Amino acid sequence: MNAEILAIGSELLTPERLDTNSLYLTRQLNEIGVEVVGKAVMGDDRARLTAAIEQARARTGLLILTGGLGPTEDDVTREAVAAACRRELVFHQDLLDAIEARFRSAKRAMAAINRRQAYLVDGFEALANDRGTAPGQWFRDEAGILLLLPGPPHELQAMFERECLRRLRLAIPQQHIVTRVMRVAGMPESDLDQRISPIYTRYQNPVTTILAAPGDIQIHLRGTGPSGAEAQALVDELARLIEAELGDRIYSREGKSLEEVVGGLLLAHRATLAVAESCTGGMLAERITSVAGSSNYFVGGWVSYTNRAKRQWLGVSGEVLETHGAVSAETAGEMAQQARRRAGSTLGLAVTGVAGPTPDSGGGKDGPKPVGTVFVALADEKGSDVRQRQFIGERDRIRQQATQMALDMIRRSFLPKAGG
Amino acid sequence: MNAEILAIGSELLTPERLDTNSLYLTRQLNEIGVEVVGKAVMGDDRARLTAAIEQARARTGLLILTGGLGPTEDDVTREAVAAACRRELVFHQDLLDAIEARFRSAKRAMAAINRRQAYLVDGFEALANDRGTAPGQWFRDEAGILLLLPGPPHELQAMFERECLRRLRLAIPQQHIVTRVMRVAGMPESDLDQRISPIYTRYQNPVTTILAAPGDIQIHLRGTGPSGAEAQALVDELARLIEAELGDRIYSREGKSLEEVVGGLLLAHRATLAVAESCTGGMLAERITSVAGSSNYFVGGWVSYTNRAKRQWLGVSGEVLETHGAVSAETAGEMAQQARRRAGSTLGLAVTGVAGPTPDSGGGKDGPKPVGTVFVALADEKGSDVRQRQFIGERDRIRQQATQMALDMIRRSFLPKAGG
Repeated sequence: MNAEILAIGSELLTPERLDTNSLYLTRQLNEIGVEVVGKAVMGDDRARLTAAIEQARARTGLLILTGGLGPTEDDVTREAVAAACRRELVFHQDLLDAIEARFRSAKRAMAAINRRQAYLVDGFEALANDRGTAPGQWFRDEAGILLLLPGPPHELQAMFERECLRRLRLAIPQQHIVTRVMRVAGMPESDLDQRISPIYTRYQNPVTTILAAPGDIQIHLRGTGPSGAEAQALVDELARLIEAELGDRIYSREGKSLEEVVGGLLLAHRATLAVAESCTGGMLAERITSVAGSSNYFVGGWVSYTNRAKRQWLGVSGEVLETHGAVSAETAGEMAQQARRRAGSTLGLAVTGVAGPTPDSGGGKDGPKPVGTVFVALADEKGSDVRQRQFIGERDRIRQQATQMALDMIRRSFLPKAGG
Repeated sequence: MNAEILAIGSELLTPERLDTNSLYLTRQLNEIGVEVVGKAVMGDDRARLTAAIEQARARTGLLILTGGLGPTEDDVTREAVAAACRRELVFHQDLLDAIEARFRSAKRAMAAINRRQAYLVDGFEALANDRGTAPGQWFRDEAGILLLLPGPPHELQAMFERECLRRLRLAIPQQHIVTRVMRVAGMPESDLDQRISPIYTRYQNPVTTILAAPGDIQIHLRGTGPSGAEAQALVDELARLIEAELGDRIYSREGKSLEEVVGGLLLAHRATLAVAESCTGGMLAERITSVAGSSNYFVGGWVSYTNRAKRQWLGVSGEVLETHGAVSAETAGEMAQQARRRAGSTLGLAVTGVAGPTPDSGGGKDGPKPVGTVFVALADEKGSDVRQRQFIGERDRIRQQATQMALDMIRRSFLPKAGG
């Protein structure tokens, strides 16, 4: 079964507000096998709302309206639903009694306008609200199910769990949904899609969704079946094919972040890490330490933002800086080695590059490097491995891609070597 | 004029994702006098999308579509718009050339599927994308304006400002709107609102909106008038009253971030800065270096995540660490002094604290400190100033508040002293 969610309230159309009830409802609906195929936000405009309700009911079997059930003039959901369904609003004395009782128990006088909340659309069933005055409403006819819920999240959630889930489960043929999130580092979205779209487009179920962030791609698989085991088997089958195509480019099969995965590898290998950063300015250390428990493997780091800091704090040689420049393979290698030595850690990781907006002025015989040039070095007891990349984008994007590349070098260093 | 925004992408219908482009667009549209009367999210379903575009165009003069312009099979916006407008898709060699040039400059081969991005709906105008491969599209007929923008926020925003604002201003009857964003550090939202709500609730125009993030509050004023000068006068009047109430708690009157404001102060005073961080793990340096040009005042920093790093790299005395613990005023003070001395900078700034989730095990005679305890020290040639705060919330929230507190200590050190 498919659902649409329509959030009602002019405040949700300002530049500052988002409708987050739909996230909660989507999670709940997905768990009982209902797909959300559209969601919308509308203001307190009765005519527009009436038309939107009619259109949504015509195309989708479950329509959930949130908000607009308050006592004031601009709460127009009840009226709009009545108009869309061509039914009357009917006053219910028992609902008014319950609202009055609620005010009495809070030792407050009920305002006359709250009487509006005691009306139901004719033929609709009231859903009790134990956290507010607005009752919800439930209705089912040959066009499908229509559900009216209050806007405040704590009222909506309590009402959904207590009053709606049971009714929905009875009304909907049972389905089971299984999801899997695979993550890939440092691969352009179009390259990745070219490799795996011939695979996933063969499957209508599971549904595949690809999400790209700088240097990071998530592949979401969502399988549906009459039982959990069947849904799982579908997801497993497609996942195996994608894994066979992408191999060790996949860094997580369960949606973990790269910094979590790297932290887990360092712990498992009883390895420790120190970092030396230039262009990323602390972002690499920040990502590593965003993981709770990172003090078990992360010693610390240097943000050697100037040449002087690279020389004096890390001991990068003045000759290297002068000959090759601050943005060079040689400087990256020395930074990683020195970080490792000074920290007494198993590994040393270094990043130097040009985040922009102006090209590098770090010196060296080859002249200024273009914006986006990044060197990453990983040092261990055997020496250091240095890689160069050219990223495109704004300052923050280049920094994010550089940290992603650096973390992925650690992950790859723990992969079993090919052949042999 | 009224607008609707339609975000396209199945990933935006999962329980994890929200469409945030609509917030950016709403802000931009409001500033040129356009009201957003509805917004929606739809999946990559061509038939549904086609119907939604037809319906939206029939009721609203400006329709903005975001997303679904990528190179892959599930990017269906181009096809759906063509179907809704009953027009063909037309290949443009010059667009393909631009896409290929973009790949060449990144020294990558263009995937064949990127060719799909070189198609425009017949009669539509291409909008250049300087941050990605997908061109936008602009169209205007008697039904109104139709605008196709790429989904990635950095691409969408650059394109909107460069290509769309000018076209929209020409197409829309002019209204005058003036906005002002004041920012306040380190004040709870409820305290702030209690002080200024008696002031701003007296004004229907400007409209006041308050947005709170960890340790940071934005006060948005939006005034509307028949002329720019009248709108400006309204905003100025309310802003003066709020400023009189909040005084030097306001760190920016023009929406700048605290790291930008602090950078400007350091530059103006020809001062330089080095940092030493423990619980914030690089986040403080990352924020400072997120500002372009920060190398003019930021020397660098230490992420001294372990006691050993604090001792060996920064020279914090073993006695201080043993007696008072890593999370203490004494350790913070030494870290700041040592950072300043080792960097040869005008100022040294240090943060040590407990980000959680487990209480501090940094030792000291007073035993473990609770989660959320943070010490910040600012050292100059006269000595160091140390402050303690107790924050609440999750790990990331505590780290954000700690960096905010640290940056605000620098700002306050440059304020003229009271009295005298």
